[in-house]
Amino acid sequence: MITLEQARSIIAAAEAKADEIGQPMNIAVADWGGHLITHIRMDGAWLGSIDIAIKKAFTARAFDISTRDLAKLAPDGGEFFGINTSNQGRVMIFAGGIPLYREGRVVGAIGVSGGSGVQDQAVAEAGAADFAARELAASD
Amino acid sequence: MITLEQARSIIAAAEAKADEIGQPMNIAVADWGGHLITHIRMDGAWLGSIDIAIKKAFTARAFDISTRDLAKLAPDGGEFFGINTSNQGRVMIFAGGIPLYREGRVVGAIGVSGGSGVQDQAVAEAGAADFAARELAASD
Amino acid sequence: MITLEQARSIIAAAEAKADEIGQPMNIAVADWGGHLITHIRMDGAWLGSIDIAIKKAFTARAFDISTRDLAKLAPDGGEFFGINTSNQGRVMIFAGGIPLYREGRVVGAIGVSGGSGVQDQAVAEAGAADFAARELAASD
Amino acid sequence: MITLEQARSIIAAAEAKADEIGQPMNIAVADWGGHLITHIRMDGAWLGSIDIAIKKAFTARAFDISTRDLAKLAPDGGEFFGINTSNQGRVMIFAGGIPLYREGRVVGAIGVSGGSGVQDQAVAEAGAADFAARELAASD
Repeated sequence: MITLEQARSIIAAAEAKADEIGQPMNIAVADWGGHLITHIRMDGAWLGSIDIAIKKAFTARAFDISTRDLAKLAPDGGEFFGINTSNQGRVMIFAGGIPLYREGRVVGAIGVSGGSGVQDQAVAEAGAADFAARELAASD
Repeated sequence: MITLEQARSIIAAAEAKADEIGQPMNIAVADWGGHLITHIRMDGAWLGSIDIAIKKAFTARAFDISTRDLAKLAPDGGEFFGINTSNQGRVMIFAGGIPLYREGRVVGAIGVSGGSGVQDQAVAEAGAADFAARELAASD
Repeated sequence: MITLEQARSIIAAAEAKADEIGQPMNIAVADWGGHLITHIRMDGAWLGSIDIAIKKAFTARAFDISTRDLAKLAPDGGEFFGINTSNQGRVMIFAGGIPLYREGRVVGAIGVSGGSGVQDQAVAEAGAADFAARELAASD
Repeated sequence: MITLEQARSIIAAAEAKADEIGQPMNIAVADWGGHLITHIRMDGAWLGSIDIAIKKAFTARAFDISTRDLAKLAPDGGEFFGINTSNQGRVMIFAGGIPLYREGRVVGAIGVSGGSGVQDQAVAEAGAADFAARELAASD
């Protein structure tokens, strides 16, 4: 399981990336069940992105896929068109949600919202990289 | 914060524009938190637009962007496709919602619904222009 | 039908009463269909009362009864216990919603929220009294 | 406005209290508009309390009252019976939500869920006390 301490480390790494980019973000980390462990809204970040960041984390865990990749399957006419209206509207289908892995299995996810899709993705990747690096260090 | 008196002035300016166009409208003004300050439905305006006007105001504040511009990012295959299913269905992605600025910061928004996108936008702009003019006068 | 001009007169009378009491209120007027005509949130009124004022107006029209009287029928074990979870949660069962009458028929309602039940009721009654007086004058 | 840094300080104080009590908690801080600034779920805290903590913070801000005091007004037959079905189900009416004050005005709220009402209240009070102490220090 991802602990609060680990989730905070993920948030810190993502937050540092957002600061570097210069775009305030909402950042959320979800656990194995897709449930929120912790969330931050950086000063000045969009109000509407609170919900989106939390849902991107849920989505990435719910389908064990990045929301960016899920989006490619969900356009009009796509295999999963309309998936974003399932699960009581908790599914988000644009970039910024990434699964977190431990020993090859998804154990949680990070969700980021507050900028362009490219920015959200970069910040989420920074958080996920922090988790991966610490997992690697812990397994040594 | 936007006072009720200021919100009423915004509504009056927007209403005058709607009268000029000859199209009855629902007009809503939201505060810093996206919450409704005041709303009017002009005689003959659509019932279904009550909800939409209020949500356009929420959306313009939630993402600090006009709903017309947000819509451009949210078509099928767009960066924010599906954003309208976030925030418990309170996000509207067609023209008529505009942020209100004080000293360069968004402090609220106006939402208008009742006609074509072009009409809604024009009425919202009239309301936003009233607020901007009064802010300018107050800062002198 | 209640016009926007009439609804504004109702609001003004209710607002004057709220000022007299010294308690900021949310005040809403609904039409024959229970749909919002206009709403104001007085400066400093509770955010959570926006929704409640609008719903009290809906409720008073939906069941053609004051919400204070409906509440008496809806306690645990009462005939209408649980009614507040019907209609997509739009039913409110405490004082402050009052039907508006024209020639003995309900044509709309006022909903007020922001103080105690006694205060809300008094402000709603002031609004309803304004409408009744104007109807009487118009019928002469 | 409450900054993320201030919200984190509030969380830290509340978390220390929860550790002292020995009961893992969900702790949320909301801003002036009732919107989430930051949230933590301590290891082992209930999943179902994520939502409740966030809603307690919303409620305490929406009505500018502690949820414990609101609960006293909302029993069967009470003045505000049924208030928990307003605001799209975001109103929670048991102890653990407390408004945060700056210069006598509510500027946000803390919401805590994870233990008994007495425990939740104690943890929320620890967070609120931290904010009050820092506000006092800042005003000197």
